[in-house]
Amino acid sequence: MKNVNIGIDMGGTRIKMGLIDVAGNILETRSLKARSGLGMAQVLEDLVAPVNELLNGNEQVKGIGIAFPGIVDPVNKRVLSDYVKYPGAGKTDFEAWAGKNWGVPLALENDARAALIGEWQFGAGKGCDNLVMITLGTGVGTAVLIDGKLLRGKNFLAGNLGGHMSIDYKGRVCNCGNIGCVESTASTWVLKSDLKKSGAYAASPLNRDKDPDYESLFRYARKGDPVAKELRENSIRAWGTGIINLIHAYDPEKIVIGGGIMKSKDEILPGIEKMIEKHSWIPAGSLPVVAASRKETAGILGTNYLLNKARIKNEI
Amino acid sequence: MKNVNIGIDMGGTRIKMGLIDVAGNILETRSLKARSGLGMAQVLEDLVAPVNELLNGNEQVKGIGIAFPGIVDPVNKRVLSDYVKYPGAGKTDFEAWAGKNWGVPLALENDARAALIGEWQFGAGKGCDNLVMITLGTGVGTAVLIDGKLLRGKNFLAGNLGGHMSIDYKGRVCNCGNIGCVESTASTWVLKSDLKKSGAYAASPLNRDKDPDYESLFRYARKGDPVAKELRENSIRAWGTGIINLIHAYDPEKIVIGGGIMKSKDEILPGIEKMIEKHSWIPAGSLPVVAASRKETAGILGTNYLLNKARIKNEI
Repeated sequence: MKNVNIGIDMGGTRIKMGLIDVAGNILETRSLKARSGLGMAQVLEDLVAPVNELLNGNEQVKGIGIAFPGIVDPVNKRVLSDYVKYPGAGKTDFEAWAGKNWGVPLALENDARAALIGEWQFGAGKGCDNLVMITLGTGVGTAVLIDGKLLRGKNFLAGNLGGHMSIDYKGRVCNCGNIGCVESTASTWVLKSDLKKSGAYAASPLNRDKDPDYESLFRYARKGDPVAKELRENSIRAWGTGIINLIHAYDPEKIVIGGGIMKSKDEILPGIEKMIEKHSWIPAGSLPVVAASRKETAGILGTNYLLNKARIKNEI
Repeated sequence: MKNVNIGIDMGGTRIKMGLIDVAGNILETRSLKARSGLGMAQVLEDLVAPVNELLNGNEQVKGIGIAFPGIVDPVNKRVLSDYVKYPGAGKTDFEAWAGKNWGVPLALENDARAALIGEWQFGAGKGCDNLVMITLGTGVGTAVLIDGKLLRGKNFLAGNLGGHMSIDYKGRVCNCGNIGCVESTASTWVLKSDLKKSGAYAASPLNRDKDPDYESLFRYARKGDPVAKELRENSIRAWGTGIINLIHAYDPEKIVIGGGIMKSKDEILPGIEKMIEKHSWIPAGSLPVVAASRKETAGILGTNYLLNKARIKNEI
């Protein structure tokens, strides 16, 4: 029987799972609809069967790693933030769930941090011990590596809140309670809500899409739709400003950008690079800003790395 | 003969100097007008006599520490930023100056970092190894300590640019080239330039002051002057937003605020605390935000600490 870990990346819309061997090779993956509305307890219950199918009786599972979209205490393995997609996550004992079903230890970490680790060890951040990771998607997630260590802070939120740093101190209130966050200025959830507004927004061809997103936005902008063009300019300006703030905060060696919106990376990266060159304090051209290369599996790979590291250090 | 260090804090308006013994006691201080316009080389030349007067022939000088208002490479002992008060600083060999005049090693560090070290070792940040320092004055300076180590980054600017993080992505261009910086929204230099505007600003009683600053602003605001009240609200909102961004970036144990504007700390701290409670992600009441306690000497004490530490580690 082969020794394996299970990595689970709990996205807002999809849950990705992977079977990984000790060397970090992904043997098999699976992607499920998130059904987060059922609540954390039910979602975990519903994950037992798919995990067992992945294991297939032929593997010896050694640990389960979960990447979670929210503030996570990886020491006590608890979700700390209330502002999460999965109701009841804060009260959930993930460790007990892994113990009861498979008798194995658990690693729990914030999803952006797990993705950063995955990109650092196996992807676009390889070889860089001072790294900032950003995910542009339904929301905006970030994580920070300093001298090869995850930045976590007193309440485990250091580095994770680049999407909830304000770039508009007189702007609108974000879902999170802060004002003018990067995420509440430009992300998929805010795009959808902006498009429902009256006036030019409602009349934009973007609204003809059943599920408008940044891919359609960039498409309509290329065709000349003024609303799409305006939202494109505004979004790139918002992300660029947020990224300059992260550069000024951490002064990293490299920035890796992932998330669904990066399907349009060819339209996004040049605009951001131009802003960094024009407005940041770092020497021009000195900072590689690159797209994530392990888009589907970075989170899974990251939790696997954290599991193995914790096992070596005897922390679990 | 007593072994001493000399610490020099090069402010924008005043240069503070101190004679410090090995235990970190300040034996004597001196404050000179900065005359930064003369250029770095002349300013250093003019400092030789005051340093010798401080030494007074009775002390054995072991090292010179300089806290400088700009981005500093403390390894090669060079000023990196062009956006500084002292023209020519980037071309200046500070080490050669210390060697030529006294034959001693030199420590050079950014002034906010030196102040942070001073407050950490001897002041309001004592006992906190995860600390953010902010100075509100002519400009806005910041520095960050993580696990007892200064955060420096690839280009030595990590943690130093809290004043040049954007809180207004469509705002005005700062002297530094970034847009909507905390510093270009609320600091003494921008206040003076705002007051020169026409209209209500020009007519405000604030403009009757020969040298209007935040002390007079808060005084006129208490008297009900609408311009002063508006600038007070806007400034506290800007600083509060900037500080929430720093909290979200570093999640520290404590925040120490210094700088000349903090003469009005009783008007500033409650407003900032209220904003943190309302808009930040940290648990309410969990983060002490305090005024600096070594206002005049933190920078001098900080350079002294760095000198001694470098000597122990044999780095100089």
